[in-house]
Amino acid sequence: MADSKPEAKKEGRPKARLPRGFRDRGAAEIAAERAVIETVRKVYEGYGFEPLETPAFEYTDALGKFLPDLDRPNEGVFSLKDDDGDWLSLRYDLTAPLARHVAANFQHLTKPFRRYQTGPVWRNEKPGPGRFREFLQFDADTVGSASPSADAELLMMLSDALEALGLARGDYVIKLNNRKLLDGVLEAAGIALDDRARRGTVLRAIDKLDRLGIEGVIALLGEGRKDESGDFTKGAGLSPDQAQRILSFVAPDAKDEEAHLNQIGILVGQSAVGAAGLNELEQIVKLLMACGYGPDRIVFDTGVVRGLDYYTGAVFEAQLTFPVQNEAGETVIFGSVAGGGRYDDLVARFTGQAVPATGVSIGVSRLISALASRGAKPQALQPLVVVTVMDKADAANAFQTVAELRAAGLRAEAYVGTQKFGDQMKYADRRGAAIAVIEGGDERAKGEVTLKDLALGAELAKSVESRAAWTANRQAQVSVPRAQLVSQIKKLLGRS
Amino acid sequence: MADSKPEAKKEGRPKARLPRGFRDRGAAEIAAERAVIETVRKVYEGYGFEPLETPAFEYTDALGKFLPDLDRPNEGVFSLKDDDGDWLSLRYDLTAPLARHVAANFQHLTKPFRRYQTGPVWRNEKPGPGRFREFLQFDADTVGSASPSADAELLMMLSDALEALGLARGDYVIKLNNRKLLDGVLEAAGIALDDRARRGTVLRAIDKLDRLGIEGVIALLGEGRKDESGDFTKGAGLSPDQAQRILSFVAPDAKDEEAHLNQIGILVGQSAVGAAGLNELEQIVKLLMACGYGPDRIVFDTGVVRGLDYYTGAVFEAQLTFPVQNEAGETVIFGSVAGGGRYDDLVARFTGQAVPATGVSIGVSRLISALASRGAKPQALQPLVVVTVMDKADAANAFQTVAELRAAGLRAEAYVGTQKFGDQMKYADRRGAAIAVIEGGDERAKGEVTLKDLALGAELAKSVESRAAWTANRQAQVSVPRAQLVSQIKKLLGRS
Repeated sequence: MADSKPEAKKEGRPKARLPRGFRDRGAAEIAAERAVIETVRKVYEGYGFEPLETPAFEYTDALGKFLPDLDRPNEGVFSLKDDDGDWLSLRYDLTAPLARHVAANFQHLTKPFRRYQTGPVWRNEKPGPGRFREFLQFDADTVGSASPSADAELLMMLSDALEALGLARGDYVIKLNNRKLLDGVLEAAGIALDDRARRGTVLRAIDKLDRLGIEGVIALLGEGRKDESGDFTKGAGLSPDQAQRILSFVAPDAKDEEAHLNQIGILVGQSAVGAAGLNELEQIVKLLMACGYGPDRIVFDTGVVRGLDYYTGAVFEAQLTFPVQNEAGETVIFGSVAGGGRYDDLVARFTGQAVPATGVSIGVSRLISALASRGAKPQALQPLVVVTVMDKADAANAFQTVAELRAAGLRAEAYVGTQKFGDQMKYADRRGAAIAVIEGGDERAKGEVTLKDLALGAELAKSVESRAAWTANRQAQVSVPRAQLVSQIKKLLGRS
Repeated sequence: MADSKPEAKKEGRPKARLPRGFRDRGAAEIAAERAVIETVRKVYEGYGFEPLETPAFEYTDALGKFLPDLDRPNEGVFSLKDDDGDWLSLRYDLTAPLARHVAANFQHLTKPFRRYQTGPVWRNEKPGPGRFREFLQFDADTVGSASPSADAELLMMLSDALEALGLARGDYVIKLNNRKLLDGVLEAAGIALDDRARRGTVLRAIDKLDRLGIEGVIALLGEGRKDESGDFTKGAGLSPDQAQRILSFVAPDAKDEEAHLNQIGILVGQSAVGAAGLNELEQIVKLLMACGYGPDRIVFDTGVVRGLDYYTGAVFEAQLTFPVQNEAGETVIFGSVAGGGRYDDLVARFTGQAVPATGVSIGVSRLISALASRGAKPQALQPLVVVTVMDKADAANAFQTVAELRAAGLRAEAYVGTQKFGDQMKYADRRGAAIAVIEGGDERAKGEVTLKDLALGAELAKSVESRAAWTANRQAQVSVPRAQLVSQIKKLLGRS
């Protein structure tokens, strides 16, 4: 309406912009994501896992202190105060909501409770290139079983999912470790395990081995470290001997597997928790080997500890092994796309009763980038047919035509804009349509319809002088009897 | 670990509860939702619409004042302050983010720009029974075309989608109206159209016709209305004659279509906007009729105005016509499951330049409830096979067995808990498994495996005296050669 101009004053207009760290996604990326989700979903459902969905919001106290980064306990999440004064937060992962769900419904759940969940999570962190504040995770967890079977199952399932996504054996490796081993090393080195803060500092120091190297980690295990910007990170305050024992565990210099296990045995010493870790690891590996999931897929690697504080047993991480180009055009190893482990204390936060649990989380957005960098073709939409409208009176005719094409299983649209024919052809081109259908008065009088092969037209126009483009254009065009519309289009699309 | 007890003090424990107005959803509902989304998606993609995803957050000023309820302009959305002082809000619909996307990318978009989007939206409203603060919408919009073709296309597409979802002709009706007609009536009645506040009050009064009846609407068009609780809602302040003209439009007493159109002609009088509305309506109906979308699917109904302020032309609403049981067990007509219309001013908020647009939104959660109340069977997961584990040493064997079953296309899980055999059978029952596979030492020695048909077992146990249950149990069990495992299971599942 001419007289409705909301906020007509220019200074009153909001800017059309995305909040920092968020983005819009188009058809190609959505299709790729859908393909990944469907593939993983089928694998997980094949294993008997069933879907659960929790809401975006949880009470802030229910998310508790299991934040991704304990260094900044009050950051990391998006929070707001509800009308009734309670604080709500958007979930930052899918594990904390699962713990809340299990605690709230414990009596009614069939244990072991095995569910998968996929959906966005939100992190209130500083955005950067390729670092977003909203991204998709795909989790599977088994709650209520302390058996190493449950861990082994997740490892096999993750391996199956990665291969179902098109990753070949050798394109990825799942590295397996056990937190109890590290705890055993700490205990044997005389570091108190109930000093949770120090233990957390040690974990996060080790987790930075890839990035900071041995020198950096030694500094973080000791007094602390000053980074390039001059910021100082306080260390765990271990003695050089203690730090060395931990490093010997995390970055072993053993020549072979046997020497490695011997070395661990020495580092763990008489620690009961260390022995328990070795036993769990052995049982998991035994199951994996029996099912053919050998070191070409899953390997024991003490370098993987996972940064999160809440793991209590097996920890693992799936890494891609092939080089990719990063945003800066540098060739890098892509690294981790999934990870997980056993966390036996998460439900106890609510109930006081320990409930054994183990889980795996796939970073879907990261995985899609990785698959794309491999040149994996995202599942494309079907080829599109655009039916042009020669004059207004033709609109009904065009709609009838597309209905006929759709009934034959084709993707087809009638032009619904108000531009002239030439612009409609440009529209069809820009839409990436495969074929344009032209059915004006002349064609209709002859009982014909004209089909233009847009892909061929573009190809021909490229290969000839521009003055010959018109002829090329003609070559890509064919008039066929109206009754053969569907069959001729299918023929052009190579689907007859 | 025995020594890790986070927040061991009882008073420090958070409650395991969902925030008000949010909920968890299980496998059946997720499967139903997935089926609806896939069906609608296929129809929309068949029409050439392509997916777009915008993030959960927008800048609050970008969402602007197009809130669902103008009576409470500062409520309705979840908002929080970003680190840099800017306010962010969670999207409350998918239209406002689309307007932002179009305004930000206008030059690069191929017009008409036709996209669909599905995802959760959040409303910070008082929750109630069946009223949630997070729910799913499925939108399709055409931006950049003022042609009635664009509106007609959405109406046909919505009709196709509802029928693809299993609604029969007659189970639903799409009611079509045009805001310009109402504006014509207002103008002819001497009510200034640029008095947006009053126009909005009139719209919302009319929108309550179903709920409040004619008397209630007359009160809201006049001085105002006191509801049952004693709360007074201020009215639009129209004269009795003005109110009567509007009511004659909204709730006509004409005997037939012709008389109705005559009546509208009189009410609209010399209003230019009213004449434009009649012309648009006529063109849309003409296209619909030419394509066979007659009054058995789409009807003209002046009673539909839609409460939202931003519509500028065609408005429509899909209603289900069959009775359902509500939460209180009363039989009611389900009502609206989708709606939309033309909104030519939404992008102008950002750019100052009017961009014609029209869209449709399906309330997926409401639609699923409606389909469920019709007894529509949600797409179930495949039948499940549970392989029991007689003793720990069997776990590897059970994993090999399920791998074999999955390779044959079955959904199968090995028991990963730590309970004994009897509890494993209870687990299989509670999981709703179709078949349990038992392969203990005895069976293995004979080269056999035992299959228990759990559905048959439950059936037999029901039909006989409990003392005969043991025999019944035996009948539902069969031992077969191990080599026939897959074929026998497929036979039991009726899939051989």
